[in-house]
Amino acid sequence: MGTERGLLIVLSGPSGAGKSTVIGALMRRRSDIRFSVSATTREPRPGEVDGVNYFFRTHEQFAQMLAQDAFLEHAEYVGNHYGTPSAPVEENLNAGYHVLLEIDVQGAAQVLQKRPDTVSVFLCPPSMAELERRLRGRGTDSEEKIQGRMDRARREYALAKNYAYIVVNDDAEKAAAELDAIIMAELCRSEIRLKTIMEGDRPI
Amino acid sequence: MGTERGLLIVLSGPSGAGKSTVIGALMRRRSDIRFSVSATTREPRPGEVDGVNYFFRTHEQFAQMLAQDAFLEHAEYVGNHYGTPSAPVEENLNAGYHVLLEIDVQGAAQVLQKRPDTVSVFLCPPSMAELERRLRGRGTDSEEKIQGRMDRARREYALAKNYAYIVVNDDAEKAAAELDAIIMAELCRSEIRLKTIMEGDRPI
Repeated sequence: MGTERGLLIVLSGPSGAGKSTVIGALMRRRSDIRFSVSATTREPRPGEVDGVNYFFRTHEQFAQMLAQDAFLEHAEYVGNHYGTPSAPVEENLNAGYHVLLEIDVQGAAQVLQKRPDTVSVFLCPPSMAELERRLRGRGTDSEEKIQGRMDRARREYALAKNYAYIVVNDDAEKAAAELDAIIMAELCRSEIRLKTIMEGDRPI
Repeated sequence: MGTERGLLIVLSGPSGAGKSTVIGALMRRRSDIRFSVSATTREPRPGEVDGVNYFFRTHEQFAQMLAQDAFLEHAEYVGNHYGTPSAPVEENLNAGYHVLLEIDVQGAAQVLQKRPDTVSVFLCPPSMAELERRLRGRGTDSEEKIQGRMDRARREYALAKNYAYIVVNDDAEKAAAELDAIIMAELCRSEIRLKTIMEGDRPI
């Protein structure tokens, strides 16, 4: 930490992978991670605070930010825009914090294209068989719905190969330990370490 | 572990980086690492055991192994040949052990060319300034000798960029924790994890 620049980390994964639980466990292990706050054009819901839950922006403001290339990634859902503003991410990275973006596979693809040094992690359940067991174990879904969920999971898994790392969540603490190890290892990458050494008390 | 194939890990670094201490600390953390035993044409010294310290081979046997491309890397020093036989490395990897090769930068380059999936780690002291402080702190070397050592360290550092990771050893336990994290992270690489998932109880 200290003057070292933080890592930009993208975390994706199918619903049911347990992202929130694993992130919670990771946060108890490390205090040097910040979450990105998204910008959106949708109306705030009761209790939502600007700059905490979202940066609430008008359509005009959002369009201006788009024109200024001010987003790491953005998307439109049912008439509203959502995006990850670059500026606060950069500020946190420069302050030495690792910034975690929990975004979907499309958003992740945009970030990876814009910032190839992003650390990308795909979180998934242990296997398709285990996912199917979990879905059937609920006992609430029709066969058709189960097959639909399995198809979607297969499509999402197919994109997992675009991520540098895959963390299998059969145990949230173990998954968090792996995420922690990925961060430690990425900080040891020679491109990053040589920079730190060069900027140290005596250049090589 | 289990049926997962182990990782081939190459560790290099200038003398004085503290490789032995860090490896000892790593071994206390993980029981799934094996060391490679080198083959050599030099005579066994008193107490050295064939297959433990080295595989002792005749020049003819060594030449035959070379002809069969049976080495991951090899070199000649003062009339004797030294090399890392591939077969025992492969056996350990297939049994799920990670195999650690502690070799110099030339040997590491050969291994990386032959096996691009090798995890390469360069171990170094915190900075050139620290190295110089350590060398001067000994109070035994002439100015010329100190400059010679510094020049050599600079040449070795220049090759550190060919390694995927650089671990800075200012504390052996911390350095071992980083090596451990690198192993954990490498096992999460999507190429490896997708293979494991595909070979699991249900292909994707």
